[in-house]
Amino acid sequence: MAEAAAQDLLLAAAFVSDAQYNRNIPFKTSPEAVRLYHLYNHWMMRTATYFFIFLNLSLALFEEPAVYPLPFLATSVRKVLCLLVFLGRLTHFAKVTLHNVFWKDTKNICIMVAILLSLTDLAVYGVLRLYGVRSIRWSRIVRPIFLINFAESRQIRRAFRSIRNTLPEITYVFLLFMFSLLMFSLMALKLFGERNLQTAEGLPYFRNYLEIVFDLYVLVTTANSPDVMMPAFDFSSWYALFFIAFVIVNTYIFMSLFLAVVYNNYKKHLKNEIRKLAYMKRRKMIEAFNLLKEEEGEQFVVREARWKQLVKLVAPDTSNSHRELLLRISDDEQKGFIDKKSFVQLADLLNIQVVTLKIRRHPLARWAPALYGSAPSWLLRRVVRHRAFVWTYDAIILVNAVFIALDEESPFISYAEWVFLALYMIEILLKVYTYEPREFFGKTQFWNWFDTLIIFAALTATILNATLKSTMKYNSQQILDIVFILRVLRLIRIVDSIQRFQVIMNTLINIVPTMLTFGGLTLVVYCVFAIIGMEIFHGKIQSFPANSNAPHALECGNPALKDSLFARGKYCKNNFNDFASSFIVLMELTVVNQWHVFANAFASVTAQPAKLYFITFHIVMVIIIVNIFVSFILEAFFVEYSLEKSDVETAIEQKIQELGVGVQEDELQHEQLLDNMESAEHEFAGEGGTKPQSKGLVFKIASKPLLCSLSSVTSLWRRCLGG
Amino acid sequence: MAEAAAQDLLLAAAFVSDAQYNRNIPFKTSPEAVRLYHLYNHWMMRTATYFFIFLNLSLALFEEPAVYPLPFLATSVRKVLCLLVFLGRLTHFAKVTLHNVFWKDTKNICIMVAILLSLTDLAVYGVLRLYGVRSIRWSRIVRPIFLINFAESRQIRRAFRSIRNTLPEITYVFLLFMFSLLMFSLMALKLFGERNLQTAEGLPYFRNYLEIVFDLYVLVTTANSPDVMMPAFDFSSWYALFFIAFVIVNTYIFMSLFLAVVYNNYKKHLKNEIRKLAYMKRRKMIEAFNLLKEEEGEQFVVREARWKQLVKLVAPDTSNSHRELLLRISDDEQKGFIDKKSFVQLADLLNIQVVTLKIRRHPLARWAPALYGSAPSWLLRRVVRHRAFVWTYDAIILVNAVFIALDEESPFISYAEWVFLALYMIEILLKVYTYEPREFFGKTQFWNWFDTLIIFAALTATILNATLKSTMKYNSQQILDIVFILRVLRLIRIVDSIQRFQVIMNTLINIVPTMLTFGGLTLVVYCVFAIIGMEIFHGKIQSFPANSNAPHALECGNPALKDSLFARGKYCKNNFNDFASSFIVLMELTVVNQWHVFANAFASVTAQPAKLYFITFHIVMVIIIVNIFVSFILEAFFVEYSLEKSDVETAIEQKIQELGVGVQEDELQHEQLLDNMESAEHEFAGEGGTKPQSKGLVFKIASKPLLCSLSSVTSLWRRCLGG
Repeated sequence: MAEAAAQDLLLAAAFVSDAQYNRNIPFKTSPEAVRLYHLYNHWMMRTATYFFIFLNLSLALFEEPAVYPLPFLATSVRKVLCLLVFLGRLTHFAKVTLHNVFWKDTKNICIMVAILLSLTDLAVYGVLRLYGVRSIRWSRIVRPIFLINFAESRQIRRAFRSIRNTLPEITYVFLLFMFSLLMFSLMALKLFGERNLQTAEGLPYFRNYLEIVFDLYVLVTTANSPDVMMPAFDFSSWYALFFIAFVIVNTYIFMSLFLAVVYNNYKKHLKNEIRKLAYMKRRKMIEAFNLLKEEEGEQFVVREARWKQLVKLVAPDTSNSHRELLLRISDDEQKGFIDKKSFVQLADLLNIQVVTLKIRRHPLARWAPALYGSAPSWLLRRVVRHRAFVWTYDAIILVNAVFIALDEESPFISYAEWVFLALYMIEILLKVYTYEPREFFGKTQFWNWFDTLIIFAALTATILNATLKSTMKYNSQQILDIVFILRVLRLIRIVDSIQRFQVIMNTLINIVPTMLTFGGLTLVVYCVFAIIGMEIFHGKIQSFPANSNAPHALECGNPALKDSLFARGKYCKNNFNDFASSFIVLMELTVVNQWHVFANAFASVTAQPAKLYFITFHIVMVIIIVNIFVSFILEAFFVEYSLEKSDVETAIEQKIQELGVGVQEDELQHEQLLDNMESAEHEFAGEGGTKPQSKGLVFKIASKPLLCSLSSVTSLWRRCLGG
Repeated sequence: MAEAAAQDLLLAAAFVSDAQYNRNIPFKTSPEAVRLYHLYNHWMMRTATYFFIFLNLSLALFEEPAVYPLPFLATSVRKVLCLLVFLGRLTHFAKVTLHNVFWKDTKNICIMVAILLSLTDLAVYGVLRLYGVRSIRWSRIVRPIFLINFAESRQIRRAFRSIRNTLPEITYVFLLFMFSLLMFSLMALKLFGERNLQTAEGLPYFRNYLEIVFDLYVLVTTANSPDVMMPAFDFSSWYALFFIAFVIVNTYIFMSLFLAVVYNNYKKHLKNEIRKLAYMKRRKMIEAFNLLKEEEGEQFVVREARWKQLVKLVAPDTSNSHRELLLRISDDEQKGFIDKKSFVQLADLLNIQVVTLKIRRHPLARWAPALYGSAPSWLLRRVVRHRAFVWTYDAIILVNAVFIALDEESPFISYAEWVFLALYMIEILLKVYTYEPREFFGKTQFWNWFDTLIIFAALTATILNATLKSTMKYNSQQILDIVFILRVLRLIRIVDSIQRFQVIMNTLINIVPTMLTFGGLTLVVYCVFAIIGMEIFHGKIQSFPANSNAPHALECGNPALKDSLFARGKYCKNNFNDFASSFIVLMELTVVNQWHVFANAFASVTAQPAKLYFITFHIVMVIIIVNIFVSFILEAFFVEYSLEKSDVETAIEQKIQELGVGVQEDELQHEQLLDNMESAEHEFAGEGGTKPQSKGLVFKIASKPLLCSLSSVTSLWRRCLGG
């Protein structure tokens, strides 16, 4: 009986945590499998998987063509290690999943095929290498598959799915856009083709239809404006009208249309996903409820004791008081049991971060109460909490900014740096002295963490640099660079002093996790294009040091580039010779400007169709992915502006207020908040034990100090993308 | 009594038409004033006003510095004429408006001041000119005021108001963006300032803080990517990370943020305006109702006869049957009177274009029934109506496209052109033969009009060209260019054959009127910047013909530009020497690319602070106005995708269906529609006079053949922007 109850609990816990993370894995129902499932979801296991995925991707830096060449054996061993880890992770997953479900899931098959392909390729390459034959490492293109297909990368998969769903709609607009482009090109051919005009470089202007199409496609991205217009404009001013019409139709209208289509589909898709996830979550929670339910009067309920055990199992990190708060929300009338409706809410409740503000006495107040409570100490703490303290430090930051801009060489300035560092150190120490340290370094105190880390890093680096300088008479450029960057980053703090900026900054900070999804997406696309690019363009363009005497050093090592814009712009270092360079080139292509110079140069050193590579990259990266990124930022800020709070959050807040353990956010600034806490502490001490469930504790919803609505943006997006 | 009733009617009509156009002019209540009011609103008067506004603006082309110089007397006379017209229009407006309202309205005061200033300036300039003194024509900057402040330019005023409302919000984001820019610049100064690096042009790289700020601002617009990065990147690959971080933060995040803020505010503002307009409209309609109401049982109503008189007064162009339809909608139960609720709807009802499809017999069927009804004629009409006919012509268009791309010189090709022209002519004639001509050239038959105009223009131009060629052995380039353009435009028709493209195209065509508002907005901003630009930069840069021997011809007539990117790019013709050139330069600055080259060149020929002119233009035009334009396109397509129909339209459609005079759109293609009309005609003939109110008539809502939702986009926007 006890055995069965424990098993039920474990299963229910698996269902609940599954729902909490919005997953839908039909796991096996033996307690053993459930334990394995919890292990599978452990954050360490997940971090390890990510680590090996990136280790596998980073191999590209060490294999031929390498940035940092490593012997073949070393990369092979690392590769095999990664593959073994992936295989292990997959086996683990298979153990917790139902067989027929596991084998029907495309992503599992994908991973297995990818592992198999990588191993085969490694073997073939190794054998051929022994015989001195260089073959293509085609398995490289398989690598991003691990990033996409592991269960952990749900967000990236969703983003890809969303792109796939956008494709039909975007294809129609794209075809219409291409039609418009072809029409304008035809017009340009007729208007300018027989005028014998020349470009600024002395090349024939608008003679060949395909070249016109390419030039005008480049004009859509505005990269060759106004150069592409000048010969015609010089010939007759009226021809400017042709280009104005072209830019209005194609750049302004069609590009906006692409954004509209992408945004619209992305939003639609987002809504569907959220609806689906909400349904799945509800189903899971009902399953869990059915496992644990007992009859109570006319309805089925879950008793308090079981409920508590369950929460302890699912979220072992929550404090007793937090659990108590959740119970009070779920069991509103304190009947000793939770009905179905409240139970279903549990996954949402667990997802909302409630900060338990522990009203603790300052450690010094405990260790040296006389000293800490003395008049000078009290005065000091009052000063630190005063608004003027913040203003003083804002003024110091501004002065610091001026000093940074001044010349480094003068000894006066370099001493000033030590003074500033000392001032910042003192600020942090004073704050830690005044506020409770564990509160000061709380999870949500972004700016405190930021300050402290920056100052300590700057201190370490400055000391290191000074030591190196005095002992070895040597300035390490890397360390100096880091010191410079840290110094400037310190100035960011001033933004936090202005309420309006704070809101924008905090929205930006809150969307960082989701932006990482786009990072993943970009990484996958870059990887694929970098690998293809290296196969096509590897070694075609060389970079030489500034004063090299090598032949064709000025033409990037390729006579075909003589007098080209590419060579004249000194772009030689932008090549596909290794993975890192390829990434930089792709980044420059994403920024779009001058991409036609790259396309022309690489087409002239290989073959004309090579331009297709650049056009394809532009369509995939700029028209689709950048637009999705813009859509995401737009949506995040629209939600931010609409200032809505989710229902569950409101419920929790109500309960917090009801129980009298809330913190009034509206009228409180940060320092006052801490002030208030201290006075609350005294009150509690006076009242004795009248509120046992909340003694020494104050709750608030984690995202509240930023802006109420932020949590709903992030929760919306986390639900959809951030899993 | 009759006098009073007529007066009431006139007044009510003024109220109704005021509400219909969403205006809020508290006009005088004498019948004379009401008649003047109707005259004031006459489309001819309004068109004339616009004509004179543009005539006044176009004076800039003929005055010093002129594109086409005209004697001072000629421009002065034109100017005085324009001012007199404006004064007349204003007086007319004063006659229909209440005195205290007229004198409180800023825009009237603005116009009067502008007229006064222009006259003073003209007089002063004229007198000084007699004494040979050249003074600044500062009244030019006043000219756009007429475009903004005339009652007709309500849309442009609204757009400006919307920009003003967006400003506070955008300022905060802009300050944060500037802060980020200044921080990154400081970092760049520390990282690269003392490396003695050089740009590709051999200039010092990142030495001066202000120059770094400008360079990085340019990088935000991506115009100098990757050039600005290359020296640092060549020095060490790691420095690329600095630029990647910069682009992500400033170009991708902040620029999206600007779009988000602009879009959000624009939409909010739009909603408020619409709400306000709806309220005003309701009030006007209630006033009109109160004038005409009579007691009927327990409620006040408007009797049918009066209602009909009113509609006839307000919309004299509507057909009897259309009026009958509206009556049936308003007086649902045919009680002979209209209650308040239905009456208030009238303005909306009048605003919805209901196309009266007159089921008329083809003129030929009336004039030569035997011939038109004969078997060959019937067969011909069947062929023309067949899908294959459309396909055949699509194929012809494709073949034509290939022929256009081929070389013009071969005589075979130039004869082919005549063949194609003949084929297209035949198509139009056949269609007019098959379909009823007045229907074929109906108001909403955009593509029929487009086709016919293009073909006839091409025919005229081709004949003209051939005549010139054979008689004067001379090819007029202008005519040839027009012929080329018309030939290519013909090909657009093929888009109309694909349903999916049709929808996108029609949305685009529907938003053209509102886009004109942005045209107006852009015109005002361009005018102001062009006038300032001409004052600062006039004559500083000269353009020379290709092989000029003038000194400094290669340096655009200014030694300061020697070896500059501006001179090397052959940009000399981009200058502020006259109004037209200034516009082209501003257009190129709007497109953004290479704008730093312009800014640097103009700063080097005048003074460094001249860069501020270009930065200001970028902020005003690109960050604000282009973003509003993008927001508009986004919104138009979002509404299009959301597929909603307004309530009033649904009501009309229901009634049309109820009365059995509707056309089933869903299952009908265009030709089938016309087929159906003909068969409907036969039915009507067979049934005799059972449906007297709809005999020979079929109604449909004008926008229906495009896409249901379009009407709501356009009505939404027209209501808000298009007056």
